[in-house]
Amino acid sequence: MTVSDRAEGTPETGRRTRGGADARRALRQKPKIVQNPYIVRKIPLVTVLDEEGLTVIENNADTILQEVGIEFRDEPEALELWKKAGADVKGTRIRFPKGLPRSIIQKSAPKEYIQHARNAERSVRIGGDATVFAPVYGPPFIRNLDDGRRYATIEDFRNFVKLAYMSPSIHHSGGTVCEPVDLPVNKRHLDMVYSHIKYSDKPFMGSVTAPERAADTVEMAKIVFGEKFLETNTVITSLINANSPMVWDGTMLGAMKVYARANQASITTPFILAGAMSPVTAAGTLAQVLAEVLSGAATCQLYKAGAPVIFGVFASSISMQSGAPTFGTPEPTLVSLAAGQLARRLGIPYRTGGSLCASKVPDAQAAYESAQTLLPTLQAGTNFVLHGAGWLEGGLASGYEKFVMDADQLGMMQVLAKGIDLTENGQALSAIREVGPGSHYLGCSHTQANFETAFYRSSIADNNSFEQWLAEGEQDAAQRANKIWKRMLNEYEAPPLDPAIDEALQAFVAQRKAAAPDSNV
Amino acid sequence: MTVSDRAEGTPETGRRTRGGADARRALRQKPKIVQNPYIVRKIPLVTVLDEEGLTVIENNADTILQEVGIEFRDEPEALELWKKAGADVKGTRIRFPKGLPRSIIQKSAPKEYIQHARNAERSVRIGGDATVFAPVYGPPFIRNLDDGRRYATIEDFRNFVKLAYMSPSIHHSGGTVCEPVDLPVNKRHLDMVYSHIKYSDKPFMGSVTAPERAADTVEMAKIVFGEKFLETNTVITSLINANSPMVWDGTMLGAMKVYARANQASITTPFILAGAMSPVTAAGTLAQVLAEVLSGAATCQLYKAGAPVIFGVFASSISMQSGAPTFGTPEPTLVSLAAGQLARRLGIPYRTGGSLCASKVPDAQAAYESAQTLLPTLQAGTNFVLHGAGWLEGGLASGYEKFVMDADQLGMMQVLAKGIDLTENGQALSAIREVGPGSHYLGCSHTQANFETAFYRSSIADNNSFEQWLAEGEQDAAQRANKIWKRMLNEYEAPPLDPAIDEALQAFVAQRKAAAPDSNV
Repeated sequence: MTVSDRAEGTPETGRRTRGGADARRALRQKPKIVQNPYIVRKIPLVTVLDEEGLTVIENNADTILQEVGIEFRDEPEALELWKKAGADVKGTRIRFPKGLPRSIIQKSAPKEYIQHARNAERSVRIGGDATVFAPVYGPPFIRNLDDGRRYATIEDFRNFVKLAYMSPSIHHSGGTVCEPVDLPVNKRHLDMVYSHIKYSDKPFMGSVTAPERAADTVEMAKIVFGEKFLETNTVITSLINANSPMVWDGTMLGAMKVYARANQASITTPFILAGAMSPVTAAGTLAQVLAEVLSGAATCQLYKAGAPVIFGVFASSISMQSGAPTFGTPEPTLVSLAAGQLARRLGIPYRTGGSLCASKVPDAQAAYESAQTLLPTLQAGTNFVLHGAGWLEGGLASGYEKFVMDADQLGMMQVLAKGIDLTENGQALSAIREVGPGSHYLGCSHTQANFETAFYRSSIADNNSFEQWLAEGEQDAAQRANKIWKRMLNEYEAPPLDPAIDEALQAFVAQRKAAAPDSNV
Repeated sequence: MTVSDRAEGTPETGRRTRGGADARRALRQKPKIVQNPYIVRKIPLVTVLDEEGLTVIENNADTILQEVGIEFRDEPEALELWKKAGADVKGTRIRFPKGLPRSIIQKSAPKEYIQHARNAERSVRIGGDATVFAPVYGPPFIRNLDDGRRYATIEDFRNFVKLAYMSPSIHHSGGTVCEPVDLPVNKRHLDMVYSHIKYSDKPFMGSVTAPERAADTVEMAKIVFGEKFLETNTVITSLINANSPMVWDGTMLGAMKVYARANQASITTPFILAGAMSPVTAAGTLAQVLAEVLSGAATCQLYKAGAPVIFGVFASSISMQSGAPTFGTPEPTLVSLAAGQLARRLGIPYRTGGSLCASKVPDAQAAYESAQTLLPTLQAGTNFVLHGAGWLEGGLASGYEKFVMDADQLGMMQVLAKGIDLTENGQALSAIREVGPGSHYLGCSHTQANFETAFYRSSIADNNSFEQWLAEGEQDAAQRANKIWKRMLNEYEAPPLDPAIDEALQAFVAQRKAAAPDSNV
């Protein structure tokens, strides 16, 4: 099943529940920021397994599902649904007849879907040849050159939402861009979701830390998009992690159930540090990952047939010496590339990778690891890229400098994905004829005609002469990035938001906050 | 035409001209250093052009060769040879009948060849599914954390030869690892070639700055390998740059002629900063590159049919603002991947990429740019990778810290190229059955059995906890790399070299140095 495809960059019109005058005023007020549409990949996919290898993995996943089974904890309804569907349910362990989860998924899960943004121009297609970049997700700490490392606050959260909003190649506002630990656990989701809506107009993710917080997210989305719109459209994509190996827990399943039944999307993601949560080998990891995704994504379809669900895998390894997570190493690259192949054979969108690193600081280690994760992420045909920018220290810190460095790399991926222009202008024979042997192309008419768009222009790289770099204070990339994020936050202007919607959101947040005492559980 | 293939890792025996007792003693004395064999790629190639796109580029290259032609300057013999071969020679401009250069190459140039090292275990296969990593080439400066940036000396040169020798995934000693500017220009090649032979046992590159210096290189190789051995074997691979656009000069052609006629290999390489030396577009750059390589590699075959010749391309761009070279951007990646496709269709080995960067220091910029160059280099099916480690500042500086950082990345590429292990051990079903849902793999028998080889172990990355990293002084990757190169140089032990050969080499160097006054031309 596929959703109807939508041409890239075609703005949706007429779907807002609130009227035209507001929309026109909003358009006039819209700050002039450059935004790239989500990527539509023109370069071939990169693969690492042939048909035989893929079949081996798929058979092993089936074996795991049949013989070992998957635990579904603290979610009796899932056990009931699987019993009805024909699975072998003993206690909380479910064993699946060969091929059942796959056939359930393929019967109803969309191959791709549109996640609508409150600004229709920022809506994204998730699946197929589309790639959408979202920022880092989850860190309780932030790091920047001024403060070093410290606990994150809601102010940091807003800052990262603003930075993502202003980054041309970040297509999605993400979710927990950092954990605002200054707010009570049971209420902070309200401020997080509100911040995504208020300070950005890009699509966003919902709370998954409890089913009722997922429900709050859906309610807030209804205020923005209208209740009727949500009946047939997806405006939230949320991260549903497996408790690998082979466990789905009640919190995550409960959140997924809320979203699925509201037609909202879930990313079913085995969170893998190979060697701890999966075998130390790529093929072993892949079989387990596929088994976990099949069981999770099929459960999503049992909750609500047709709800968008993504094949996710967070692939990394541990250091065999210390047990610490490692990033940017070759083994997770192989897993990410192969899992993309498995996702396409299953026929649902794919999420992996990002700009992952173990480094504590935005140094060479951080960059090597991030680049060695990001490029394969694009090449794997990844549709939804979480952690695209800002990830530091194995996900413990959101880095301000790292964020703008990574965002620059995302811009490069955007150009790379376009492939080679073979138009007459691209072929440039006229330039070669004009210039001829022993001359140069600096001033030729072809170069002049293509001056503005010829090459990707990095915001971070210093390509100046040594002497000029010296004269400008011998700054490294992190020091330059420090200036950039400060300038961006300084120049930030909020996207227009209908004041009536804003008021309704604030009222909802206030009402929900008043309804229960603060709690850190 | 192909050379007879040699199984990876099979040591050659009995080819030395000097006797068995020395060899046996050498073997006993050999220091215990870990060395990886050259890469035999098991992962699929990455492509960016389809059949139609490749044909467009090839047709455009033919058009350039026919209509615009190529300049061959200060090398009358090349003009004569091309006249005889049927080309249209007017002054120093040669225009080529459609398909002539390609047919000349395909008639006699080897698809792959063995470059022998003086230690047979370090001999490398260049071409086909093999990838060989060599260090940085050419910088007049060095940089390290202790000295900052300064002119390179022969001491630095020796240091980089030693570091390359001790790096497990650097398979080749390279050539001008830095320019020893403390020695006279007309003699420094003698010390450079001697250093490669003396301080390493890996294969090396020859001098190309004048035909007579190429001849000196060949003479020194004869001392090491024996005159007879060179008659049918390749022991030198050298870098022959085009003077792009569309010019071959007498110095480079003269050096290539010396090497070709001694059966030694040449890398015919358009040195491209797109926007200056080629059009600003990838397709335009590719057509020009192909035309230049076709003309250069065919000239090599006219000098000596069957001499190994490599399709080289140094692909980068300039900043359209400042004209400065840029690295690690998406456009050169597309050129490198596509040129690999063109080289395979032509049927000769391929050279591109490396760990290129514009950054002055080993910071995040350097690492992003290097990683974004290196991974595509492997994926392009590159057979000979110059600048694999140590490149900084657009090739103006060889970095000590950068060298060991990059060498670590080369080790990762070595693992990545192996692809996914689909043996029973690789599939790891037993581990998944043993561990089951909700447990972990840390101590399971499969993990224990694979403990030593499970994951690539980075020498640079710090994966420790934040607290431990803090306690150890909050070092960044460059600071850790600084310790590593110093430790390596401290632990360095020279590979055994037959004293008679060493003496003969030293005598040759002394004689050649005495034969002419010092000169810096």
